[in-house]
Amino acid sequence: MKALSPMDAMFPIAEHRRQPMHVAGLQLFKPPADASPNFVARLVEEMRSFQKALPPYNRRVVFRGTWFWVEDEQFDLDHHFRHLALPQPGRIRELLAMTSRLHGSLTDRSRPLWESNVIEGLADGRFAMYSKVHHAMFDGVAAMREARNALSNDPSERGMPPPWARPRTTRRRSENALAQPASPLNALIQSMGLNYRMLPGALHGLRDLLRPASQELGDATPYQAPPTMFNVRISSSRRVAAQSYSLSRIREVGKIYGATINDVALAMCAGALRSYLILHKALPDRSLISMVPVSVRALDGPEGGNQVAIILAILGTELADPVKRLETIIASTRRAKERMATMTRLEQMAYSTAALSPMAFTSILGLDRYRPAFNIVISNVPGPTERLYWNGAELEESYPVSIPIDGQALNITMTSYCDQVAFGFTACRRSVPGMQRLLDFTENALAELESASTASRVRREKRPA
Amino acid sequence: MKALSPMDAMFPIAEHRRQPMHVAGLQLFKPPADASPNFVARLVEEMRSFQKALPPYNRRVVFRGTWFWVEDEQFDLDHHFRHLALPQPGRIRELLAMTSRLHGSLTDRSRPLWESNVIEGLADGRFAMYSKVHHAMFDGVAAMREARNALSNDPSERGMPPPWARPRTTRRRSENALAQPASPLNALIQSMGLNYRMLPGALHGLRDLLRPASQELGDATPYQAPPTMFNVRISSSRRVAAQSYSLSRIREVGKIYGATINDVALAMCAGALRSYLILHKALPDRSLISMVPVSVRALDGPEGGNQVAIILAILGTELADPVKRLETIIASTRRAKERMATMTRLEQMAYSTAALSPMAFTSILGLDRYRPAFNIVISNVPGPTERLYWNGAELEESYPVSIPIDGQALNITMTSYCDQVAFGFTACRRSVPGMQRLLDFTENALAELESASTASRVRREKRPA
Repeated sequence: MKALSPMDAMFPIAEHRRQPMHVAGLQLFKPPADASPNFVARLVEEMRSFQKALPPYNRRVVFRGTWFWVEDEQFDLDHHFRHLALPQPGRIRELLAMTSRLHGSLTDRSRPLWESNVIEGLADGRFAMYSKVHHAMFDGVAAMREARNALSNDPSERGMPPPWARPRTTRRRSENALAQPASPLNALIQSMGLNYRMLPGALHGLRDLLRPASQELGDATPYQAPPTMFNVRISSSRRVAAQSYSLSRIREVGKIYGATINDVALAMCAGALRSYLILHKALPDRSLISMVPVSVRALDGPEGGNQVAIILAILGTELADPVKRLETIIASTRRAKERMATMTRLEQMAYSTAALSPMAFTSILGLDRYRPAFNIVISNVPGPTERLYWNGAELEESYPVSIPIDGQALNITMTSYCDQVAFGFTACRRSVPGMQRLLDFTENALAELESASTASRVRREKRPA
Repeated sequence: MKALSPMDAMFPIAEHRRQPMHVAGLQLFKPPADASPNFVARLVEEMRSFQKALPPYNRRVVFRGTWFWVEDEQFDLDHHFRHLALPQPGRIRELLAMTSRLHGSLTDRSRPLWESNVIEGLADGRFAMYSKVHHAMFDGVAAMREARNALSNDPSERGMPPPWARPRTTRRRSENALAQPASPLNALIQSMGLNYRMLPGALHGLRDLLRPASQELGDATPYQAPPTMFNVRISSSRRVAAQSYSLSRIREVGKIYGATINDVALAMCAGALRSYLILHKALPDRSLISMVPVSVRALDGPEGGNQVAIILAILGTELADPVKRLETIIASTRRAKERMATMTRLEQMAYSTAALSPMAFTSILGLDRYRPAFNIVISNVPGPTERLYWNGAELEESYPVSIPIDGQALNITMTSYCDQVAFGFTACRRSVPGMQRLLDFTENALAELESASTASRVRREKRPA
């Protein structure tokens, strides 16, 4: 019996029927060239032979005044591991419809809080895995690391255990560690580790602390975000959309404007959100503010649990010019990172509390009494940079599926894989209608930045010397 | 805006994440002989063309001090109507695994409380429909009538609208009305209609009322049921098992022992429960008590809502002799029905409150403070007696899927269709392990009664005149 950390415990507390607190991954695999027609059925059989789960996959939560992890003495693999199939015609559209439904259902609290689904029936011969874990078990980075560590660089490797049966060794963990976030943040790890334990008591002084913060452009503080159609009470059903964009295209745009990859990705989201809000006649005069969680996990830290701090970024959605939007984002994230690096521990704590409080407290405090602290959560979770395989099947695409909450009806989470950045859009199905339009709008936003840069280069080149 | 009746309103009140309050039907269809390979895909397309839902399928619940039905202005058919597929090898086993999962997820309260799923991929070429409706919309009999009225006697009929788009006419309703329960109960309809409105105030005097009730054998009163493994707090995941048994076999046994079909069906359940409890070393010394809901719906009553009274039956599970078990059941149900027919209105009300109170009040009062009022709910919902078709596809099997609740981890609901009685077993997956064993045990219980009757006939025939 092991108590959940106060931060991990926020997730079961904040969860309710309209607001499940699990994250998920949707992976698309190509069977090996020599695969037999029953490759997937045999893979499922093989996975099913691992009837025993190792920690943390064998632990369920119990509440005894506070939340604890205990071993599930009645572990039942059939509950957690499922074999599903798409209906005809087996397009990505059918896969995303299924993913939306799977993502909308609550986990069973009497059991370990995870599910693994192998999905056959894609018309192109691939198969998918949708893997759900409760946020109390893993944050986004830890979940991504789990997914990565279950796979292999070696296309010829066979007999690989599924995630729930993978033995954890220090060797394997450090060997396969993911790229870590930028260094200024890593400096905060030790202090954040302490602060999480102080979080519940920190809420009280939060607003006083934030009020005197600088109001300069590029220095977003909570409670300056405009109300939008995304900042409403959510329903319990979900819509998931996903698409990958070329990392080299994004990098190219970043070079031209002196932006990080994350800045360009935020600008793509900003352009897409602007188009979507114009379509729905709901674009506010003031810029949307995005909350951007950043990992403060140590390379040698524990595998599970939550280790996250945040920055707030001004998205420039009120600006028609895509370059000006990107410049606004660059200035905003740069200042936010500088500010975090020089923050006192009390201020860091306030920031993190602001990031977390909507999840844990909207339902208690009542949603409508406050303006939104930010309009949307946009996460960028670093992913693997090399090709990966699962018992010979090549991982072709890998998408994060995240958590809308009351007041935050749309979540955008991105992750990189080889030469791609995979965008996962997860929304309340009712509040964000026709969300799949965001996929095209995101592509358009990237294309706009590319053509603007070509135009400016052309102008520059044409300029007389 | 129309208020839910106090009885209908109990279902949203009693619902929580471990205890969804929807009932469902699982139907198996055989495509017509001349069906094209894409028959199901085209049927789905055709159903999807009915984008508009008619009442009550377009109504959602809202809470404004009490519960009301309001029209869903953002009705979204894709949320309610789904096309699914079974994984290989597409057996009934895969269908029941899928049904178990579908049945375990909550409906979205921001929308009309129903779902309709067309499931392809059965290896035998059939397809299935799993249809879920919240108990606040329909009780079992009303849901069955809905299912029946959506179908046709005519195998050549095409272009039939799906249930949500079926126009309601008085003609159609009376034409297709199901067989109604025994007449003594119908006499109670008017008074019950009044009593439902008085229910909340009736709880207080309930136990006083029941205490002086007769303790004779065959006159089961609440609070004499032994504690069993079924009378526990439930988890949120479900297991569904289903099988049909020959109505003529059941009728034959009934004739021999002077039992109704319902009595024999109860005896089959009793025998199966005894075997299951022996297997789990958990058979109590005293008999299990079954709560048997009986419909008090008028032939010309409204189509939706809940109109149910109850009787309690002694199942004789402590008796090894199958004939003695059946005789116990016969005596018990006969007395219960006689008693209901002569009851004062106050007593009827007490009975109905006893039947309903566990659903609405276990979570409020706390489960462990009371012994179970009964051990298991066994319903027998009358079904259609003639072959039915859905756009040319023949309905071959039709199973009810019901509601386990805290304190009642296993539900058995039966319905008749032509020459079959379809048994649907719905349980908390954690509390009732290996529940599919009940299917064989139920068959065995029927076979035991048949061979006992053959033996007794042989003995009688051999007896010297």
